[in-house]
Amino acid sequence: MSLSALVLFALYLSAAAEGQNALNDIIFSGDFEFIDLTHPFDNETVYWPNTRNFVFTRKTEELGQGGSSWYAANEFAAGEHGGTHIDAPYHFYREGLHVGELPLDKLIVPLIIVDVSGLVNDDPNFVLQKHHLDYMLNAGNRCVLIFKFGWSKYFHDKKKYLGVTESDELNFPGLGEEIATWITTAYKNVVGVGVDVASVDPGCSKDFPVHKVLSSSGLYNIENVNLSMDVPSYGCTALVLPMKIRQGTGAPLRFVAICPKKLN
Amino acid sequence: MSLSALVLFALYLSAAAEGQNALNDIIFSGDFEFIDLTHPFDNETVYWPNTRNFVFTRKTEELGQGGSSWYAANEFAAGEHGGTHIDAPYHFYREGLHVGELPLDKLIVPLIIVDVSGLVNDDPNFVLQKHHLDYMLNAGNRCVLIFKFGWSKYFHDKKKYLGVTESDELNFPGLGEEIATWITTAYKNVVGVGVDVASVDPGCSKDFPVHKVLSSSGLYNIENVNLSMDVPSYGCTALVLPMKIRQGTGAPLRFVAICPKKLN
Repeated sequence: MSLSALVLFALYLSAAAEGQNALNDIIFSGDFEFIDLTHPFDNETVYWPNTRNFVFTRKTEELGQGGSSWYAANEFAAGEHGGTHIDAPYHFYREGLHVGELPLDKLIVPLIIVDVSGLVNDDPNFVLQKHHLDYMLNAGNRCVLIFKFGWSKYFHDKKKYLGVTESDELNFPGLGEEIATWITTAYKNVVGVGVDVASVDPGCSKDFPVHKVLSSSGLYNIENVNLSMDVPSYGCTALVLPMKIRQGTGAPLRFVAICPKKLN
Repeated sequence: MSLSALVLFALYLSAAAEGQNALNDIIFSGDFEFIDLTHPFDNETVYWPNTRNFVFTRKTEELGQGGSSWYAANEFAAGEHGGTHIDAPYHFYREGLHVGELPLDKLIVPLIIVDVSGLVNDDPNFVLQKHHLDYMLNAGNRCVLIFKFGWSKYFHDKKKYLGVTESDELNFPGLGEEIATWITTAYKNVVGVGVDVASVDPGCSKDFPVHKVLSSSGLYNIENVNLSMDVPSYGCTALVLPMKIRQGTGAPLRFVAICPKKLN
């Protein structure tokens, strides 16, 4: 038993004795950190071609009362599917849930990061198949699976990130249909699948089989996850909290991980 | 020591031994529940008069491939300050932080609910003063304070919720300036203040002193919190996760509490 475990347990008992919540004592014990896996929304945010980009409009910025007061407010408009966002199952499955219907117990879940960036090796035509992963997954409990292709480093360069060719085709890595079928059959505790690229299907896909397989099994997708920083593969808690657009097929997402701090 | 505490501790030790995260074992132990304090965004969502309401536009809903596939996507537009939303300090304080700059350690904090609905007693002209609260606050540690006026039950009726008069004045309860000054001087661990009405200042306010006092001390506000359901006053963890609008003065917010389950 580590000293840290002893201290946490003492805190737990003391909180329990007072009828308080041990959870706060643990989350805020100093042993955990919060990591933001979200790209910010601004006029540069990556959206799918020919969809409505995020548009930010300054409405008011003014000093009042002889310079002693300040008031500022803006408006914005956007498609549902850009930047770091969630796809609700209804996006590709008519009987699927909308964003506003997703239950919180599928949005606050253990996080698993599957880092395949070494396999991808910056190849925009890489498609992940089952044989790449046979030895890697350890997803026995309810969780969200995030695949790291190593693509967040291109997010600031829209053309490179999407791999736009002269004929306006897209090229960026993604998941093969086989992977989606495998997850939905062999790992029934997985509630959502995310990627650090613009789509769970690879850029060259025309019929989006991964979207279809995952959504028809009730899973949500997370696209454009920001994985610029190191995140432990196992042991973090995912907070997958989209803007609550009642009938949304998708929505801007605030995606945060609560992770054990690295030991120095 | 309760059986439940013993079990959690056993889980903690077993997780620690495997190098895993005890936090997941505790959050998902079955002892906690997730409560959504967010009103959904749709065409009925309450916005401040004369600001851009949430507008939801269906772009595509179509069956393809002979009826075997489905695709749906929408767009939306809105002002920053409507529905359940956050006010960044920059909204009323020129040197304050924008939404995209708010640090996560001020957004994931212990939650305190101050239920003053019994004092308000449905009076739209009620203004909370310091003497109402002298005996109530126990906010020694970093936290977000949410005041419950008992107004969420009117959210479906925009006119009643805002208390719109024939001369277009507003009447709903709020905080007095004295309370804001008291919080920012006597409770320096409070990082944000929220209400279950449309503004931290009462509806009749013309110069918004509560906004000004709180924002100039670096606090954020949360407005239109959904308190339709019971939430424990102490012991919950607040997840205050706004859409990450980089230069936002405010943003739609997903506001969730993780709370100890009630014992039956």
